[in-house]
Amino acid sequence: MGTRLSSSTLYAHLWGTPELAGVFDERAMLQSWLDILAALARAQAAFGIVPGRAAEEIAAAARVDALDLEYVAEQTRLTSHSTLGLIRGLLRVLPADVREYVYLGATVQDVSDTWFGLVMREVGGIAWRDLRLLEAALVDLARRHRSTVMAGRTHGQPGAPITFGFKVASWADEVRRHLQRLREGRDRWVVGQLGGAVGALAFFGADALALRARFCAELGLADPGISWLTARDRVAEFGTTLALICGTLARIGTEVYELARPEIGELAEPAPPGGVSSITMPHKRNPESSEHLDTLARLTRSAAAVLVEGVVAGHERDGRGWKAEWIALPEVSQLAGAALRIALGLIEGLEVHPDAMATNVTRFGSGLVSERVLAGLSRQIGKHRAQQALHEVLRQDGAELAAGLVRRGLATEDQVRTWACGPAVDVAAQMVDVVLAKAESARAAEPQEWA
Amino acid sequence: MGTRLSSSTLYAHLWGTPELAGVFDERAMLQSWLDILAALARAQAAFGIVPGRAAEEIAAAARVDALDLEYVAEQTRLTSHSTLGLIRGLLRVLPADVREYVYLGATVQDVSDTWFGLVMREVGGIAWRDLRLLEAALVDLARRHRSTVMAGRTHGQPGAPITFGFKVASWADEVRRHLQRLREGRDRWVVGQLGGAVGALAFFGADALALRARFCAELGLADPGISWLTARDRVAEFGTTLALICGTLARIGTEVYELARPEIGELAEPAPPGGVSSITMPHKRNPESSEHLDTLARLTRSAAAVLVEGVVAGHERDGRGWKAEWIALPEVSQLAGAALRIALGLIEGLEVHPDAMATNVTRFGSGLVSERVLAGLSRQIGKHRAQQALHEVLRQDGAELAAGLVRRGLATEDQVRTWACGPAVDVAAQMVDVVLAKAESARAAEPQEWA
Amino acid sequence: MGTRLSSSTLYAHLWGTPELAGVFDERAMLQSWLDILAALARAQAAFGIVPGRAAEEIAAAARVDALDLEYVAEQTRLTSHSTLGLIRGLLRVLPADVREYVYLGATVQDVSDTWFGLVMREVGGIAWRDLRLLEAALVDLARRHRSTVMAGRTHGQPGAPITFGFKVASWADEVRRHLQRLREGRDRWVVGQLGGAVGALAFFGADALALRARFCAELGLADPGISWLTARDRVAEFGTTLALICGTLARIGTEVYELARPEIGELAEPAPPGGVSSITMPHKRNPESSEHLDTLARLTRSAAAVLVEGVVAGHERDGRGWKAEWIALPEVSQLAGAALRIALGLIEGLEVHPDAMATNVTRFGSGLVSERVLAGLSRQIGKHRAQQALHEVLRQDGAELAAGLVRRGLATEDQVRTWACGPAVDVAAQMVDVVLAKAESARAAEPQEWA
Amino acid sequence: MGTRLSSSTLYAHLWGTPELAGVFDERAMLQSWLDILAALARAQAAFGIVPGRAAEEIAAAARVDALDLEYVAEQTRLTSHSTLGLIRGLLRVLPADVREYVYLGATVQDVSDTWFGLVMREVGGIAWRDLRLLEAALVDLARRHRSTVMAGRTHGQPGAPITFGFKVASWADEVRRHLQRLREGRDRWVVGQLGGAVGALAFFGADALALRARFCAELGLADPGISWLTARDRVAEFGTTLALICGTLARIGTEVYELARPEIGELAEPAPPGGVSSITMPHKRNPESSEHLDTLARLTRSAAAVLVEGVVAGHERDGRGWKAEWIALPEVSQLAGAALRIALGLIEGLEVHPDAMATNVTRFGSGLVSERVLAGLSRQIGKHRAQQALHEVLRQDGAELAAGLVRRGLATEDQVRTWACGPAVDVAAQMVDVVLAKAESARAAEPQEWA
Repeated sequence: MGTRLSSSTLYAHLWGTPELAGVFDERAMLQSWLDILAALARAQAAFGIVPGRAAEEIAAAARVDALDLEYVAEQTRLTSHSTLGLIRGLLRVLPADVREYVYLGATVQDVSDTWFGLVMREVGGIAWRDLRLLEAALVDLARRHRSTVMAGRTHGQPGAPITFGFKVASWADEVRRHLQRLREGRDRWVVGQLGGAVGALAFFGADALALRARFCAELGLADPGISWLTARDRVAEFGTTLALICGTLARIGTEVYELARPEIGELAEPAPPGGVSSITMPHKRNPESSEHLDTLARLTRSAAAVLVEGVVAGHERDGRGWKAEWIALPEVSQLAGAALRIALGLIEGLEVHPDAMATNVTRFGSGLVSERVLAGLSRQIGKHRAQQALHEVLRQDGAELAAGLVRRGLATEDQVRTWACGPAVDVAAQMVDVVLAKAESARAAEPQEWA
Repeated sequence: MGTRLSSSTLYAHLWGTPELAGVFDERAMLQSWLDILAALARAQAAFGIVPGRAAEEIAAAARVDALDLEYVAEQTRLTSHSTLGLIRGLLRVLPADVREYVYLGATVQDVSDTWFGLVMREVGGIAWRDLRLLEAALVDLARRHRSTVMAGRTHGQPGAPITFGFKVASWADEVRRHLQRLREGRDRWVVGQLGGAVGALAFFGADALALRARFCAELGLADPGISWLTARDRVAEFGTTLALICGTLARIGTEVYELARPEIGELAEPAPPGGVSSITMPHKRNPESSEHLDTLARLTRSAAAVLVEGVVAGHERDGRGWKAEWIALPEVSQLAGAALRIALGLIEGLEVHPDAMATNVTRFGSGLVSERVLAGLSRQIGKHRAQQALHEVLRQDGAELAAGLVRRGLATEDQVRTWACGPAVDVAAQMVDVVLAKAESARAAEPQEWA
Repeated sequence: MGTRLSSSTLYAHLWGTPELAGVFDERAMLQSWLDILAALARAQAAFGIVPGRAAEEIAAAARVDALDLEYVAEQTRLTSHSTLGLIRGLLRVLPADVREYVYLGATVQDVSDTWFGLVMREVGGIAWRDLRLLEAALVDLARRHRSTVMAGRTHGQPGAPITFGFKVASWADEVRRHLQRLREGRDRWVVGQLGGAVGALAFFGADALALRARFCAELGLADPGISWLTARDRVAEFGTTLALICGTLARIGTEVYELARPEIGELAEPAPPGGVSSITMPHKRNPESSEHLDTLARLTRSAAAVLVEGVVAGHERDGRGWKAEWIALPEVSQLAGAALRIALGLIEGLEVHPDAMATNVTRFGSGLVSERVLAGLSRQIGKHRAQQALHEVLRQDGAELAAGLVRRGLATEDQVRTWACGPAVDVAAQMVDVVLAKAESARAAEPQEWA
Repeated sequence: MGTRLSSSTLYAHLWGTPELAGVFDERAMLQSWLDILAALARAQAAFGIVPGRAAEEIAAAARVDALDLEYVAEQTRLTSHSTLGLIRGLLRVLPADVREYVYLGATVQDVSDTWFGLVMREVGGIAWRDLRLLEAALVDLARRHRSTVMAGRTHGQPGAPITFGFKVASWADEVRRHLQRLREGRDRWVVGQLGGAVGALAFFGADALALRARFCAELGLADPGISWLTARDRVAEFGTTLALICGTLARIGTEVYELARPEIGELAEPAPPGGVSSITMPHKRNPESSEHLDTLARLTRSAAAVLVEGVVAGHERDGRGWKAEWIALPEVSQLAGAALRIALGLIEGLEVHPDAMATNVTRFGSGLVSERVLAGLSRQIGKHRAQQALHEVLRQDGAELAAGLVRRGLATEDQVRTWACGPAVDVAAQMVDVVLAKAESARAAEPQEWA
């Protein structure tokens, strides 16, 4: 129970997932920090900096369950130091002769940045997995509705027809680009940090760089080459990528939200069993998942912006932006994780109403085919004259497009019918094919795991 | 223990205060929500909408301690409804014949927005109190250092002298403006909400507006006049005001951070007993409070921006921005509360080193008085010629300002000395007086409590 | 012709107004700066710092038309100094014996901040005027549609009915709060700046504060009490207030955008004569003004955020945030000015379709009255049973609400009819009255001019 | 002359570059749009959609110099249509029989998005070139100062030593990652758009996709596969990448700003000939370029945030975010271009003062070596005891580190000297080598041009 809804008993599920809680929950985080301390000791043992037995004892004792967290918290507050409380807690459960070998030559940021590397690996891997699942669901949906005709809408107004598959393919294509970004960025994100006081690793002698490489390898992280204590572009890029992903999910959610309006009625969210949309208006079925995707996108943008600001860091360590990352990176990660799960559920259970789509195309009939009629008439009388003619007809005769053109002697009824019946959505459907082919080829060539 | 550091055992104290945890902790929040339900029932009893006894029973039972929060949480997830879990939890502990009178005609947002009204009253009151304490500390500091000469700095470079009191008075003046803003905004923020399904209060008949007024009065909130379900400027303005306040605190913190550089050495943070700045560099004394004020300002800006975006709300209820407020308003409130406490401690314990200030003025001597010399020389040979002459002297002769002017026959040594010794900081000190007088007169005329 | 669309020949009208171009156009800005230099000389003449004749000559010569702007620009680049180019340009057109009296003891920021004070006066005055015009239009619209029934919508779904006047009154109420904010903030914004090198006004002797007061008075600005070179809350608050205003306008625009969907058809933007919505789809009528209000809100939020960040300013002058204000304050001002004009045109010409509103209420009939039926049934069988009963009926019997209730023996057909026909929107209409009364009383008590 | 400083005669050079003005200046933009119209006609001629001669005539006439821009602007305003004014202007200068073949089947966004593709190619290419120049300058600087010892600073406090080359290598390493990002993102950004009314390309028949491919190829852009009218992640990613780059440049600028404080004196900006830092304080030399890098970073972050928000786009076209891009993409591009040039000048002319660096290391002597002494003492008495001992000595004996340790019998004077003289910066220098080797190998393997 916490002071933020995101950590509350009632609402935590809206702002994270159990899987990500397994990364960011305080105990999980502390265990991860302890694992890092153990890895450091093991790496140091490999270079004779600490005795092998000490490293083993540290690794064995470094279990969050063994620590007195109240004591750890109290020492944290007392020392105003971010890791000293934890160290003191750990020392308490270690044999006296091993204590000197804990946390040797490292600093808070070595722990917390290396943890960031682990976090980015975990969160990036989850995002990779869920984005691929989402892509699969979108590919399937796009294929099924490759030729389901519906009104395209621009500026909120129904326009020429598209297919629903075309709309979904545009989402899938965007998701694929996010997968590319995740794959490309991985080497920049999944790295460790070991810099000591000012990043210069002066605590250790000639072995320092080899020690760092070993330490990173122990944790499955890449060696950074040079300390990145104030080179925060890695973290900022990662957070921004998640925010962009959430933007796409919110784009999908917003589309569902709009097309689920009863006045449009083309899509509907899956109705969860037991769900109650409105107490006071029992008839309602609110697109709450769709809405929530937008809520999450706002919050991830906001958290990512904090990370981007943090790139302007000072000297060899700068608590100002760095500590803001402590809040913003877990935040953006968990919100994005929640958004991915919600989006997946939304797409997998999405109700599509092709009848309503067809009806809406008819309902705004002459309009929707006007691009096709314009094309036909343009071939006949030139494009600009055709435009002007159509404008006049539509303004004066409203929906009576064919009649209006015939009356003006611009076309026969047959011609208008032929133009209007043309393959308005054939090209849209071909673009679906292009996207699906690209997705499938990419999926076949890439690993399921983000690695 | 939560999934965010702000709710963690170890670090929560950096991102909030115990007092604000008493507002935002989940149990406190739920108690507040229950109080709102009780107030609703009482107000409805006054209009005969529910029996008086029912209202009493509801008020008596509406204790968070009496509820089974696991059940509440489970029902919240099951129904995907934000308050139905809580209602069901409450019904369980109510006599059967009273249950029908709970939450009558209200909706989630009536509860949560009214809670926002209460929250803004609490948080605004805390901000008012702490800003006044801070102002008092600043006034005191400014008075003590009214005439303590130090280098003014522009673009990071020492320039003409100011007094330290002048610098502090500028902070006090800014704090005073924040107090004005808090006072002016109160009537817009401390309001209740009762709108029912779509804000139209249709559940209730002719008594609806009187009922709402009574409901608000029960809670010490103002009546809003019209439902504000999607009129979110109130919340956005409140959050932005807190972000501006934190900006000011970060401005103070950044100044301390910079002037506490050993190379400058004019200020130092109070050293907390037991505090450990750096394990690997034991000599260091890091300006961690000062830094943290900047961290908090970044995060409050980010949270406030979410609230500002929420002003663009749709129709009669819009979950997208509203649910984002659920995260952002508690966030900005708690961060601001933490920042105020930290700033207060920083100012109250601030170490001021007038000697170092004086030394730095001397150290960059000719430069610091050059504005005064410029003024004197300007009276003698005209301003533009004086400028050009000084530029040349300083470029060619460096610090030997007087000698350079004498050598060029532009002034006598006496003149230069007279000009340079002039009352460079008299006006600065007068401005301190202006600010202090204004602060004192405002403080005398206003209540200690924010009301 | 510039490098930004906002300064382009083709599109400038979308991102500003001619009136605001009269404030921010480079020539207008430079004239304003020259006016400030003239005011400074006049004030200095009053204290014998410069000869009265010199002040007169400076005032007479300080006309942007008299200057060689190419030379000014060249000198600006050459000196890397923000005002020296202008000063040199001015010196060129002044008699030799007057030149020494230009810009005496002042600095760039004295000019540019004082200009900000003037700008905030102009822009605030325009916002005040246009918001009042908008309020008048909204009041009129709300009055005319006080009882025009339409569907309330929550989460994008039609719910219980409201009146269109109720919706508009909520906008008017929000606009009124913005007027309050403008009125309250004025004294903080419409101030001058005269601080010299480091804000300490050391260039001038004992008369310094009196000189500043006189200088400010010359320009119709308030005296700031103390230099605010790095106290940027004034500017940040002003910009944020404009961003909040634009948020409200975007809220209105978004509502029009959504309700102008042909599937809903309740509102339509005024169609400009000659306007062409779509070349390729001649039937369309795009809600371009409504959309543009949202575009402008995004951009103003973004510019205002820069100003809020600028509050964290360092020392006695800090070019980092200050120069960002040079871009962001004119930007937010002009965008807000454009938004106000667009919103005014939108509201004044708004097409309202009460028939469509009524049809939509009927179309989603049982649903829309379900809150009323719930209220009636609650009185009969208790609220929670009533809720559950309605849920079941609506799920199983769809729109056949009355029949479903009768079949289950929960109510007679008469009862349902009575409940459903009840005064669902009476309270909504009463809230319109409350808002209009408040607006009118405020309007009667306040000046037309922002002062 | 415009209404924004960024388009002003005096100050435009601070917010853009002549080279980028050649991309974004209105005439340049319109010429680019005309080129796109010409390419469209040529592509259509290849498929027999328009006569070959018409395409040639259009290409020949499509010169911005030939158009009457006042007429174009007037028609733009009259029609409220973004390209119709331009089209009408072009038609005027075309033979009557060719007019019908202009802009056939395309829409505003086809033109403006394709222009975005061209813009991203130009701007990305400039960023690539300038980042590589910057990297070269940084590599050179890092190499020269590979072993120049200076104080590392954490939290603004001098700590253990680093080398200046180590600091610079960290910048170079970050710049290298930006180069990676630019290279990886190129294929997502440098694409054309041809979608027609709703992206479905229905105006054209079976040849539509081939036509689009040809159109893109004419302009040297990639084919997008599917219309991206509301898939705005491309633009958002591009803008964010530029904002991240500017963050890095501001990081460099801030470092120079801080280390150029006279109290520190380790770096200085190149002094431009003719530059005047301060009129009122002639001795000053302000780090204006350094400051300006931070100013530009703020503004680019703000513009990029608008682009990120735009990812949540609706339906098949959404003017809200799209039109905001019209402002934000040119803005972020030009600001980033200016920042790159400024950073390049700053680094190429940077004054480095190794003496001051050495002095500062000595000045805060015992402190700076305390990490090394801690390491030595740790080996002797264990790390935690060593920490505690050093804390006590430093607290009680101040700078007398060696004496304090000797007095307490913890070490001999010889030992302390040996520890302190150890190779504190050897590892830092090795990291320089790592970064330089990586940069050189990457540079050798990649093209100079961004392609």
